[in-house]
This record gives sequence, structure tokens and C-alpha cells, in this order.
Amino acid sequence: MDLSTPRGMRDFLPGEMAARERVFSTVRRVYSLYGFPPMETPALESVPVLTAKCGDDVAKQVFRVQDSDLGLRFDLTVPLARAVAGNSSLAKPFKRCCVARVWRREEPQKGRFREFWQADADIIGSASMRCEAELLAAACDALSALGFTGAKIRVNSRKLLSAAMEKLGLPPEKEFAVFRSLDKLEKIGAEGVGKELAGKGFSEAEIAGLLSFGEIRGSSAEKISGARELLAGAGRAEEGLEELEEILSLFSGYAASRACGIEVDFALVRGLDYYTGPIFEISAGKGGVGSLAGGGRYDDLIALYGAPPTPAVGISLGIERILELLKAQAGDSGAAPASRVFVAPVKPEFYPCALSALQEFRAAGVPAEIDLMERSLRKQLDYANSSGIPFAAIVGEREKKEGKVTLRNLESGEEKLVSASDAAKSIST
Amino acid sequence: MDLSTPRGMRDFLPGEMAARERVFSTVRRVYSLYGFPPMETPALESVPVLTAKCGDDVAKQVFRVQDSDLGLRFDLTVPLARAVAGNSSLAKPFKRCCVARVWRREEPQKGRFREFWQADADIIGSASMRCEAELLAAACDALSALGFTGAKIRVNSRKLLSAAMEKLGLPPEKEFAVFRSLDKLEKIGAEGVGKELAGKGFSEAEIAGLLSFGEIRGSSAEKISGARELLAGAGRAEEGLEELEEILSLFSGYAASRACGIEVDFALVRGLDYYTGPIFEISAGKGGVGSLAGGGRYDDLIALYGAPPTPAVGISLGIERILELLKAQAGDSGAAPASRVFVAPVKPEFYPCALSALQEFRAAGVPAEIDLMERSLRKQLDYANSSGIPFAAIVGEREKKEGKVTLRNLESGEEKLVSASDAAKSIST
Repeated sequence: MDLSTPRGMRDFLPGEMAARERVFSTVRRVYSLYGFPPMETPALESVPVLTAKCGDDVAKQVFRVQDSDLGLRFDLTVPLARAVAGNSSLAKPFKRCCVARVWRREEPQKGRFREFWQADADIIGSASMRCEAELLAAACDALSALGFTGAKIRVNSRKLLSAAMEKLGLPPEKEFAVFRSLDKLEKIGAEGVGKELAGKGFSEAEIAGLLSFGEIRGSSAEKISGARELLAGAGRAEEGLEELEEILSLFSGYAASRACGIEVDFALVRGLDYYTGPIFEISAGKGGVGSLAGGGRYDDLIALYGAPPTPAVGISLGIERILELLKAQAGDSGAAPASRVFVAPVKPEFYPCALSALQEFRAAGVPAEIDLMERSLRKQLDYANSSGIPFAAIVGEREKKEGKVTLRNLESGEEKLVSASDAAKSIST
Repeated sequence: MDLSTPRGMRDFLPGEMAARERVFSTVRRVYSLYGFPPMETPALESVPVLTAKCGDDVAKQVFRVQDSDLGLRFDLTVPLARAVAGNSSLAKPFKRCCVARVWRREEPQKGRFREFWQADADIIGSASMRCEAELLAAACDALSALGFTGAKIRVNSRKLLSAAMEKLGLPPEKEFAVFRSLDKLEKIGAEGVGKELAGKGFSEAEIAGLLSFGEIRGSSAEKISGARELLAGAGRAEEGLEELEEILSLFSGYAASRACGIEVDFALVRGLDYYTGPIFEISAGKGGVGSLAGGGRYDDLIALYGAPPTPAVGISLGIERILELLKAQAGDSGAAPASRVFVAPVKPEFYPCALSALQEFRAAGVPAEIDLMERSLRKQLDYANSSGIPFAAIVGEREKKEGKVTLRNLESGEEKLVSASDAAKSIST
């Protein structure tokens, strides 16, 4: 029988899990300071809900369930939109966070998995750019709390991308085909994107026009004024540019703006079809290998599920990428032991007495374990040592008589005879 | 488009989620005191791994993925066994906990879902009954910490059930058919079980014999001695009985035994095929409606996946049942607000100043939010009130000039003009 995990999916043994839990709890703590309470939805959704607005590429990646119309969610935004559309009584703005797994049936690559975790925060019901600024600040605070310095935000707007299409005389129904090609700019370069667009039937002039918008250079203010000129009068370009200006201005009011740079990048596209306004990505400072977080505004998604028009915006931290970079930074720091103290009866007859000591440690909040293998004292201490447990509490004849334990520091070898409760106090962290 | 959650699956909006998170974190904390570190495995496993030893009923309930041999896990034990079999380097005993979702494609009923959470702790690599006692104590401590009083443990052993089969001259390959019927004793009564067994071709005498074993009455000690007589010489009856005696004796050394009663119940079976030795269930004291936790020893499961013989035992807390009972006990206590304070700019021009105050609260660890809807002060305070946020920090002309906020207690209406950092101190919990 094949015992490997399914392709692109992983076991997280306790050592690795500890690092993941640290990231999860840090992100949850920051989100909670921002007033985002946790919410959960099912792992499965109906395929029509999942694929209503994700684009063909992602729709193909849905793991579908046999003999049903169900599939595993590929992100946390679509289930949120479905839940909000189905619960009209929710007070607005409705805010929630969610740190959970999602699944995509795509080709696994280094750092890209078929089961992975996202950590999302979303604000439903407000069209104000204050939301974008809050979300960016929350994500930057979370990244800072995780130890990332010099992260960089890039922002763009789907309104500008649409306006650029209009300016070139391209019909709106070709938007997603264009966006999906442009999204690969970082990966395959301008030439690759040009080839792909040519393959989709776009003319040389159209391709040049599309690429030239992404290539406006300068400071954010200069780029905005360049785009204002280039896109003058097209679609909702002016609205999109004013929103970007507002985000830049609001974000500068957050302390997070001192830790995280922000700049306009007209080449930013994002892969999902449901975005309608500002979009953003945050990358690690050095190297800029891929994005640590991304998101944007999806004002039409909730209405698509039959609700009244409901503006919405969200951000998603890429837990796997974050963990990969933290691991590379820290090296493999090794697993923290599950227990602070190993309670070791010298012989089986002292087990009941050792059990009492064990319970004193736990009652004092000290994670503690006892020999479950009925091993010799020596083998017990070998196990405690190799597990990295820092202390042993040994219980034998003398300890039983005096109602104490011999507390041994397994690193220094130092020993003292103390009551279990005193031992607990002295080793609690 | 149908916006309901998939059948038997649920959204957990923030109010309900808060109650769930409290249960999750309490269970995790107790498990961690017992030295069980968290571990995760994929939601999907190969169907051959999943169905190797679960029994036909459960095998039929696996959600299978189209065009693959994958299915959603129906419990957390099988993935653990697969992972341990595939990682021979793990030091023994290997302990881990896991609080996570599982899926079963069965008929949803009151309190029974197609997606639900389990909270498992397992010990791999030790055949000692010390493990059973540890797991029972951990589960009882968790239930006590959650507020359950008078929970009751029932224990039995698959070795005794097998011996009873042998005594009646029934072949071992019929065991699982018998066990699955006997498992329904509580649900459909002796008559129902008898009918079902008759339908499976068992004779009246065999059925009477099987049921009579389950009906041995008296104290645990009396039941054990009754079974010792009834099953004398059959299979591993004596071994099974001695193990039960050992569990009773070891468990009495835990303080948990004062909160949780324990008794032998030969009618206890458990639904899964992989158990080999002691099995147990914990039910709530009063009424005894269903089980809050269950588990047992599965010494053959890991070897089934190709590893050397590896004894193992685990317990699983039924999160859904626990939450259902807590809800019934507490009534609907209403959602705790996501934030402690709502920062309200009197007019948009005070937003930057309000942002500063907002950040002071968050920096002091006080969950805080700000108006994201660009609403009037009155509407902002209405929202804060209706969200149950206890305080508002109002920022207008005077507050801006003095670098302070007006902190209003939204329940009493009391106000004071203070610096944001003093306000944070006075309302932090």
C-alpha cells in the first residue's frame, strides 16, 4: 500500500507543526486587535458557487466529489461571499478572519501545494478606501510580528486595467483573457506575455498598448499622473486613480507605513476574476520572491450570489510562503519538546507515587509526561534526553518516603530533592 | 443559485465560532499539559489507506474525489496510523493531539453532521495500560475544564467480545458483523439487535449467548468476575480482563477519577473495526445522551500499513456533541463583540487623528476598530452599540487640539476626556 501523502499534500509532524502554530496564532492575534473575529465555513461548497467567478484556470483546479455537485474550496473568499449572501441579517460592515486550508488541483511545484493554508481578513459592506488601508496595515503588522522587515506593498486597480482595455478599443469580455496573461508578467516576462496574447489573437499594437500601461515608470505620484494622461476619459480610470491616491494617503497614517513601503505598480494583475477595484500584493523585502499576501476589492461577487449590491474587500496572507521564508531565515531550529518535565518512577512500584507528582506539575500548568513504556530508569532518562525534555522528576524509595521528587536538570545534571509543587514552581516558564 | 451550505455542513458565524474556539483552546491546553503536541495530516488520503480497516459502513461514507483514488478522511486515527507507518524514525512513545475536521457521507440527523470536528490524543508505541489511564484522565480533565460534571466512563475490551464469539463457536471472520450489530444496542435495544443478527443468519442460541455477555450485571469487579467465569479459557479473555482491572486501578490514581466515574460495560462495542483491546466511551452525567468521547486500542492498525507491529491507543473528544450540550446548558449567551472600543471621528476631517488613537489601543493590546463606512457620528455609535462594543473613543475638534479622546462607556453613557494610552489602560481586560 502506498503510504506517501497525496501528491502536493503534507504531514506536519509536531516539530514542524510548532512553527506553523506560531504563525497561525500571531496572525490571529493581530487580526483580533483589528477587530476581525474568526469565522468558519465548510471545506466543501457546491461547484456552481465555487466556479461562478473564479476564472477557467482555477475552475479546472477544483477537487470535485464523486456523485455530487460538491468541490473543495480553492480560497476563503468565495465561501465568505456565499455565506454573506445567504445571511442578509449580518450588520455591516461585517468583518471576519479565517485561517484555514484550501485545495487546488494544480501541478505541485517548489513552495506550491495542492493543500495549503490561507489567513484571510475581509470587510463586507463598505466602499470606503479606509478598508483597503486597514487591511494593508493589518497584514503589515502581522508580517512585522512574524519578523519580516522591509516588506513592500504594490497596489493597482482593476478599474485602470479595464480602462486601458477600453482605450485600446478592446471589448470588456476579453478582460479576463488579458488579465490572466498579464498576471504572468513576473513569471514569463513581457516577451512571454506578448506571445501568449498573440496566441489569443491580439494584434501587435494591442499587445504593445497593454504592455506600455504596465511599464509607466517613476514614483507612485508620477505613475498616477502618467496614467491619468494615458487613460484620460477612459472608463472609470479617474475613479480608480483617485482611489489609489486615497489608499496611499490613508495608509501613510498608519505606523505600519514606516515598516512597509507602498508603491503603485500598474503591472500588478492578480489571478482571480472576481476583483473589481483596488488590488494589492505584499512581497518580502529582499529578493522579492513571490508574494506574502495579496487581495483586493470584489464589489460584485456577493451580488452575484443573489444578494443586493454589497461592496467588499479582503486580504489573504500566504501561510506557506511565509513559513518557507521564516524557515530559510531561521534555519531548522529543531522541535521544542512537548513537555517541560519527565516524571520517572525508579521501579514500577513507584508509579502511583510518580502519578501524584505528575498531576502536581500539570495542575501548576507545567506540561508533564510520565513513563508509559514501563522502562528501566536509565531508558526513561535516555528518552527524556533525546526528546529534549529539560527536566526529569525521579521518584524512588527515598522520594516516596519524604513525599518529594528528585528534580534533575537534564542538561547540567544538577539535582535537588524538593516537593513536586516546589519543583513545578522552579521550572515553570 | 442554491446558497445553502452543503447538506449536513455548517457555517460558523463569529458568535457561534467564539464558543467553538473556547472549546478548541481548552482541549488543546489540557492535551498540551499532558505532553501531546499538535500534528496535522492532509484532509485527503488515498481510499485504500482510508478503508483498509474501517468496516463496510464507514467505507461507504467516504467522500471520494472524482478521477483519483483520494477521499476525505472520516477520522483522525487512520491518517495518524498511515503517517506513523511511513515515518519509522519517530521516537516511541510517539504522542500527538489533533483538533480538526473529518467528513462522513451519512444521513444527517440532529447532532450528526457530514462535516464535524474531532479532538484526538493518541499514544503510539506502548502496550502498557498506563496509556489508557493517561488518555482517560486527559479527556476527563478536558471535560471538567469545559464545565462538565459527573461524566461517566465505560470500558470494555475487544478481546472479551472476541472470546465471547469463540465461546459460542462463532468464527473470527464474523466478528465485525456481530460487533456492528451489537454497537446499536443503545440505539435499537436488545430486540432490534437480535432481529438484525437473525437477519445476518445467526441462530437464536448464538444471539442469546452474545446478548447475555453484554448483560452481566453488578459492580465493575462483579462484572469482571462474572465474565471470568463465563469466558473461562476462551481466547484472550483473561488478558482482556486483567487489562481492564489494570485500567481501573491506574485510573484511580488520577484526581480525574474523583470527577469522572468509571465502570466496566460489556455491552460497549464501538463502531470501527480497527480496535483490538480496551475500548472506552465517556458520556455526560445526566441523561447520558450519547457519548462525549470515545476511543480504544488499535494495536494492529499501524502494522496493517506495512510497519513492524506497533501498539497504539487513542481517544477522541466529540466536539459537536460537547458544543451541543454546552449550548443547551448555557442558553444562547450571545456573541462577544470582536472589539473593546470603537474609535469614532466626529467628521471625516478627524479621521487621521482618530487613526492615531486607534493605533494606540491596538499597540496596548486592546482590540479596536474605527468607522470604515464614512458614517455620521450618530450612526457610528448606533453601530458600536448594536455590535455590543462596550466603549467608544470619540475624536473631534477639542480632542484633536488636546491630543486626547472622549472615552464613552456605551452602557452607562459616562464620558471622560483622556489620552488614548490612558483610555487603553482603563479599558484593557
